[in-house]
Amino acid sequence: MTTISLDSLNASDEAQFVAALGDIYEHAPWVARAAYPRRPFATLAALSEAMMATVRAAPIEQRLALIKGHPDLAGKAARAGAMTAHSQAEQASAGLDRMTDAEFDEFHRRNDAYRKKFGFPFIICVRRHGKDSILQQFERRLRNDVAAETDAALTEIFRIVALRLDQRVEARDKLPVHGRLSTHVLDTHSGAPAPGVLIELLELSASGERRALVSMITNRDGRTDQPLIGGCPLPIGRYQLRFHVGDYFARLGTPRADPPFLDVVPVEFAIAEPEAHYHVPLLVTPWSYVTYRGS
Amino acid sequence: MTTISLDSLNASDEAQFVAALGDIYEHAPWVARAAYPRRPFATLAALSEAMMATVRAAPIEQRLALIKGHPDLAGKAARAGAMTAHSQAEQASAGLDRMTDAEFDEFHRRNDAYRKKFGFPFIICVRRHGKDSILQQFERRLRNDVAAETDAALTEIFRIVALRLDQRVEARDKLPVHGRLSTHVLDTHSGAPAPGVLIELLELSASGERRALVSMITNRDGRTDQPLIGGCPLPIGRYQLRFHVGDYFARLGTPRADPPFLDVVPVEFAIAEPEAHYHVPLLVTPWSYVTYRGS
Amino acid sequence: MTTISLDSLNASDEAQFVAALGDIYEHAPWVARAAYPRRPFATLAALSEAMMATVRAAPIEQRLALIKGHPDLAGKAARAGAMTAHSQAEQASAGLDRMTDAEFDEFHRRNDAYRKKFGFPFIICVRRHGKDSILQQFERRLRNDVAAETDAALTEIFRIVALRLDQRVEARDKLPVHGRLSTHVLDTHSGAPAPGVLIELLELSASGERRALVSMITNRDGRTDQPLIGGCPLPIGRYQLRFHVGDYFARLGTPRADPPFLDVVPVEFAIAEPEAHYHVPLLVTPWSYVTYRGS
Amino acid sequence: MTTISLDSLNASDEAQFVAALGDIYEHAPWVARAAYPRRPFATLAALSEAMMATVRAAPIEQRLALIKGHPDLAGKAARAGAMTAHSQAEQASAGLDRMTDAEFDEFHRRNDAYRKKFGFPFIICVRRHGKDSILQQFERRLRNDVAAETDAALTEIFRIVALRLDQRVEARDKLPVHGRLSTHVLDTHSGAPAPGVLIELLELSASGERRALVSMITNRDGRTDQPLIGGCPLPIGRYQLRFHVGDYFARLGTPRADPPFLDVVPVEFAIAEPEAHYHVPLLVTPWSYVTYRGS
Repeated sequence: MTTISLDSLNASDEAQFVAALGDIYEHAPWVARAAYPRRPFATLAALSEAMMATVRAAPIEQRLALIKGHPDLAGKAARAGAMTAHSQAEQASAGLDRMTDAEFDEFHRRNDAYRKKFGFPFIICVRRHGKDSILQQFERRLRNDVAAETDAALTEIFRIVALRLDQRVEARDKLPVHGRLSTHVLDTHSGAPAPGVLIELLELSASGERRALVSMITNRDGRTDQPLIGGCPLPIGRYQLRFHVGDYFARLGTPRADPPFLDVVPVEFAIAEPEAHYHVPLLVTPWSYVTYRGS
Repeated sequence: MTTISLDSLNASDEAQFVAALGDIYEHAPWVARAAYPRRPFATLAALSEAMMATVRAAPIEQRLALIKGHPDLAGKAARAGAMTAHSQAEQASAGLDRMTDAEFDEFHRRNDAYRKKFGFPFIICVRRHGKDSILQQFERRLRNDVAAETDAALTEIFRIVALRLDQRVEARDKLPVHGRLSTHVLDTHSGAPAPGVLIELLELSASGERRALVSMITNRDGRTDQPLIGGCPLPIGRYQLRFHVGDYFARLGTPRADPPFLDVVPVEFAIAEPEAHYHVPLLVTPWSYVTYRGS
Repeated sequence: MTTISLDSLNASDEAQFVAALGDIYEHAPWVARAAYPRRPFATLAALSEAMMATVRAAPIEQRLALIKGHPDLAGKAARAGAMTAHSQAEQASAGLDRMTDAEFDEFHRRNDAYRKKFGFPFIICVRRHGKDSILQQFERRLRNDVAAETDAALTEIFRIVALRLDQRVEARDKLPVHGRLSTHVLDTHSGAPAPGVLIELLELSASGERRALVSMITNRDGRTDQPLIGGCPLPIGRYQLRFHVGDYFARLGTPRADPPFLDVVPVEFAIAEPEAHYHVPLLVTPWSYVTYRGS
Repeated sequence: MTTISLDSLNASDEAQFVAALGDIYEHAPWVARAAYPRRPFATLAALSEAMMATVRAAPIEQRLALIKGHPDLAGKAARAGAMTAHSQAEQASAGLDRMTDAEFDEFHRRNDAYRKKFGFPFIICVRRHGKDSILQQFERRLRNDVAAETDAALTEIFRIVALRLDQRVEARDKLPVHGRLSTHVLDTHSGAPAPGVLIELLELSASGERRALVSMITNRDGRTDQPLIGGCPLPIGRYQLRFHVGDYFARLGTPRADPPFLDVVPVEFAIAEPEAHYHVPLLVTPWSYVTYRGS
């Protein structure tokens, strides 16, 4: 994906501006066009806000048209290729392509009910959700009345757009669209950070599926060189960290039982805030551990 | 199984004594007969010790015959019904009937190698082991020389016998053949024991199998009314406790994230000492927990 | 102090009954006399309840006379010897004889204000309070109106009486008048209880005083043979436990820094419920510890 | 104190170089003079190493003269003003001016014994030690033979010099002469950092003295804006952190006992490595806490 600097956007004429940002709102170049006269934008946040203000100020028919311009989540459109390239990439990331048959059926039942009740497609910023969370959002939002749901759909569109702007436009400021999941391992048996500990991160789902996301080794500070998840929203869902402390203590020659009382330590937790920092450390001896949501 | 009191044994004539205890050592009523003159036994421990002393003092040929009198673990004998009823019940308890095909093949390879090297069957007190642990013991003991392995086999026979005596003879003292696995849940968010928490205990195996053993609900003291495992040796192996704290905090109305950061807390640990007390508690808030091998 | 069994009381004639229990309510043998006809008492709790019911049912003048019959806390009466022997022993136990000059002055100011406002002496079950707590109770109860304070005074009299009955009468049941403070030390470095750890208990006071109450050594279970406080109410107040873990780890030869990171671990906490069980354990390595109100 | 850049030193002539660094080694400008020809120094570490190499290569008589040129710690020289300004400031920082009479007497006994045994003054980098630690070093080093103690004295001189170079010379690199003591407070009751918590740091001494060093308030990340100690060596000794969590939970309105179970949480620990990072956090609920040497 090509990027453009905020400075270049500020120096653009209208045609260039709309060429660069016209597809940021799905099938709605009018949003970019309406934002154009408000240049220059001191920050990316100001550009984002100007576009949102444009949408909020538009007549209800235009807002509904914007909503209706979005693809049906995993529906016929997904297969017919009518989605923008953006939407395709985003929908893949939510595990929509990993649904079980039962989930797929349930998904379609809710999708049809949603269409029937509201007359527009279910829009959700899929990068902020795991598979279970999307199904749950479906259920909750089906209970809304039309006015509340129209607002909910716009909120999701704004989230989708903020992620697109974050990837498209280079600026000195960053939109607060990324979360971070990090950890560290402290060996409270020897009173020092634990280096060389293998840590696996799995995504769990209600159907019992366990999907390996990443595995890392702690460095000499007992931390990972990179966050376990970073540079994107943290998908709402349940996760398991697996800390291979048995191998670590074996390498140190720490006296232990045979088999060792602790070997791989699983820590299961949920992420509820995609844009937050979750720090989930482990303080561990061969016989005990502490874990918590830290900072 | 009928039981007999130590007092009755002490008052028996030799025929009665051998009738009561002749099968305690597998196909070896001579052990009971040799112990008979050493009555009266002040304690069950004294009776047990007298029988072990008899075996230790026997000529090597007699000790080897005792060893050879034991059934081949899970071998042809198991199917032909040549095992004593005791041995059948004991072998079932170690998960030998739940082996995967690969494990079954591996088991037989080791069993054949063992027979070939030592000329007698592999004897192990199966109630002290899980499936993985038995396979591992096989591997370790195959490395012994004949003298060391003869001792190892007798040690296992003494363990089998101690469990049989514990079940057969009523006395004021107890042989130290039982372990205990217990837990408790302390809610450090509200500073009180956590009642009503569902706790599941699973047995894990190297092949990935997870077998549910028991589930219990904590009482008003945050403990279970019965130990999770008690009144028997704790089989060496890996286990998982699953503490359903999410439901507990939901019932209390404790403020939490959605989905809650902690829901079911898994704690994985190994038991290495079948006759020990393992206390594995959980101190928990909606955001943190501590677990350890306690007492 | 001589004790009497509940059975003997049930078999007594009125004169014997009143001789035995007439002084349980301070200068008010009428309470025992009125309870007498309600024999036999199945439990000590029933006897206690019968006496309380008698007081509650008495005319307000008689209840006020009961209140006024109590000595002035630490006042002239204390020195003139007009207090019953009970009252003297009880008042000593609250640290009233260890007040600083400033506390003594403050105490008398509040005592005078109380007398002036309510017309009767300040009554409090001193064995349930430390020095700071008594001063605080004074302050709080001074804000009561006369009716509420009359009730508060009777509640305290009932508490005093329950303690006297607990000491005077032997029965199968026990009145719930005792609390318990206990601890244990778990060495999570070696995964076992920590024996031989010196534990000191200090009472702290707002004036900065630190008074040693007891010191004990942990046994092989990492517990103390006796509770740190037991067989009496736990005086409301602040306490410090001092766990001498440095010496413990030094004896074990555990590798540590020089000087060791942890030596004596102080744990400060308050007791708020005199009749409760406070368990305040320490889970400790040379580099970390956990403490909590347990059960 | 005026500073000079490493670049300026590299561009200096010999007279300028010795004028700038001649007093870095106490009364020994020959060290700077001998290092001068080895310019240019790429780093401050290289300059420091060049000066140390000069000393190590000097004849034993010259090394002894260097040692003897140092003031007698707290001896007559201290009062007569014969110390360099450096030495005076450094000695004040170790609490040598806060010794009790008994400590002062003990100090002088050891000082005299040292002089008598070795024939040169006791040299120690006082900024790396608290009062108790200096007395203990005295005792340990008195047991050395002359050769070992000559090496020990030079090691201390090198530490003193490294601190002087760190303050005198500006360079891109830093000598590893500083430690850091930091903390943070995590509220595991609400799953978030604890802002606004008052933290006091006290220095403890064997004589029972408690000296307030600093107090800070946690920021919104539950950390202090500055380290508790930083930019200098951490004096070896015992310390107490006092976390005022009672006030914090009171402000939040967290349900607690009256008086609250936890109010001010004291954490006592020793610093053994002056140049290390000590992170001593508190994870706390109203009923429990965890602390540890972290990273």
